Amino acid sequence: MFDLIAFDADDTLWHNERLYELTQTKLIDLLAGYADRETVVQRLYDTEMENLEYYGYGIKSFTLSMIETALKLSRGQISGAEIEQVIRFGKEMLTTRVELLDQVAETIRVLAKSYSLMVLTKGDLRDQQWKLAQSGLGGYFQYVEIVSHKTAETYNALLKKYKIPPHRFLMVGNSLPSDILPVVALGGQAVHIPYHITWQHEIADDLPDGRDGYYKLEHMGQLPKLLNGLLTQE
Amino acid sequence: MFDLIAFDADDTLWHNERLYELTQTKLIDLLAGYADRETVVQRLYDTEMENLEYYGYGIKSFTLSMIETALKLSRGQISGAEIEQVIRFGKEMLTTRVELLDQVAETIRVLAKSYSLMVLTKGDLRDQQWKLAQSGLGGYFQYVEIVSHKTAETYNALLKKYKIPPHRFLMVGNSLPSDILPVVALGGQAVHIPYHITWQHEIADDLPDGRDGYYKLEHMGQLPKLLNGLLTQE
Repeated sequence: MFDLIAFDADDTLWHNERLYELTQTKLIDLLAGYADRETVVQRLYDTEMENLEYYGYGIKSFTLSMIETALKLSRGQISGAEIEQVIRFGKEMLTTRVELLDQVAETIRVLAKSYSLMVLTKGDLRDQQWKLAQSGLGGYFQYVEIVSHKTAETYNALLKKYKIPPHRFLMVGNSLPSDILPVVALGGQAVHIPYHITWQHEIADDLPDGRDGYYKLEHMGQLPKLLNGLLTQE
Repeated sequence: MFDLIAFDADDTLWHNERLYELTQTKLIDLLAGYADRETVVQRLYDTEMENLEYYGYGIKSFTLSMIETALKLSRGQISGAEIEQVIRFGKEMLTTRVELLDQVAETIRVLAKSYSLMVLTKGDLRDQQWKLAQSGLGGYFQYVEIVSHKTAETYNALLKKYKIPPHRFLMVGNSLPSDILPVVALGGQAVHIPYHITWQHEIADDLPDGRDGYYKLEHMGQLPKLLNGLLTQE
């Protein structure tokens, strides 16, 4: 019943947000002499939002925003050695091994036998390709699309490109504003699998229950059963 | 005779390398108290090459490499205000207006009437999409592919994805190692239009004259005539 099932990557296929949180904690420790925890968190988030139009998403953008935050909060007093440490935080993120979420590997392997699968993710090109290569799942995805934004316009262009009618498209992801709302708005179907940490920037109100084309699961392992159920209904 | 004509973007459709050179000059001036011109150029290039596997291509990567170079050459003595200036150099690059190369706009408009066109470029996702949007040419390209590397493997995967036999694919670009050699190796055809500055990293020996599937032009305006000539031969 679906021509294509697309999966968000960060915090849907593999852990991601916790790596940002861990690195943020390192920055808080580094800047302890200049600002308290709350100030660092707020200033870093504000800097990331200001920089989004320049830098887009990803670890390099985050590293540049950390450097800017360190310079601002220390009023330029931070040492060269400390800036070098921030650059190292970024490189550590870039080389952290990818860890799949529970039941992702089994589920993807099973679904790849019956469906065309796509990875459809925002973020930095190099980051995401590296994580996919590392994940061991690359071979199960027929398509990989890395995009700057996930708006209704993005999905619309993509469905046109792949010549897929919206009702035959299913999106699976952890972010309501990026993975679910724009897809449902277009007449596609979407499965929301929340992650236990949500980046402030990706928070949205839940959809009302029973809204057409929207499903919520607790983990990826429940997806094949949902798909079988939909198939039986058809 | 071609199912798809793909164009490299930087220094093929629009000027790019000169913006990096201009910014490098700003860095040389900023670091004048710590190192001479030649040392800055060499250290920056070495840092970029060391960082390539972490950061990939693009302006954010370049900015991070400039910061690292400044820290190294000043032995950590560079001031916070100066690091902020380097960050500003990067943001200035990100907001510099795209300038098309001569005869590109006219040629692309003409070719789009008869051929499927693609932008096929390395680099940072956000940078390249922004430049394409700015260029005013977005509407003439049916496809946009932004990739991490342009190796024979990359081209092979792409041709499979689009179901195009190599001999019906033409690549146009300024870089021998990225745009020409891997395409010719696969049995595709390629048009080399050199740009007056070549980044050290993209230098390769010229192909021998008369090698099958390889053409060299002086500017984009000569492309329609070459294509007509090939069509007549067929």
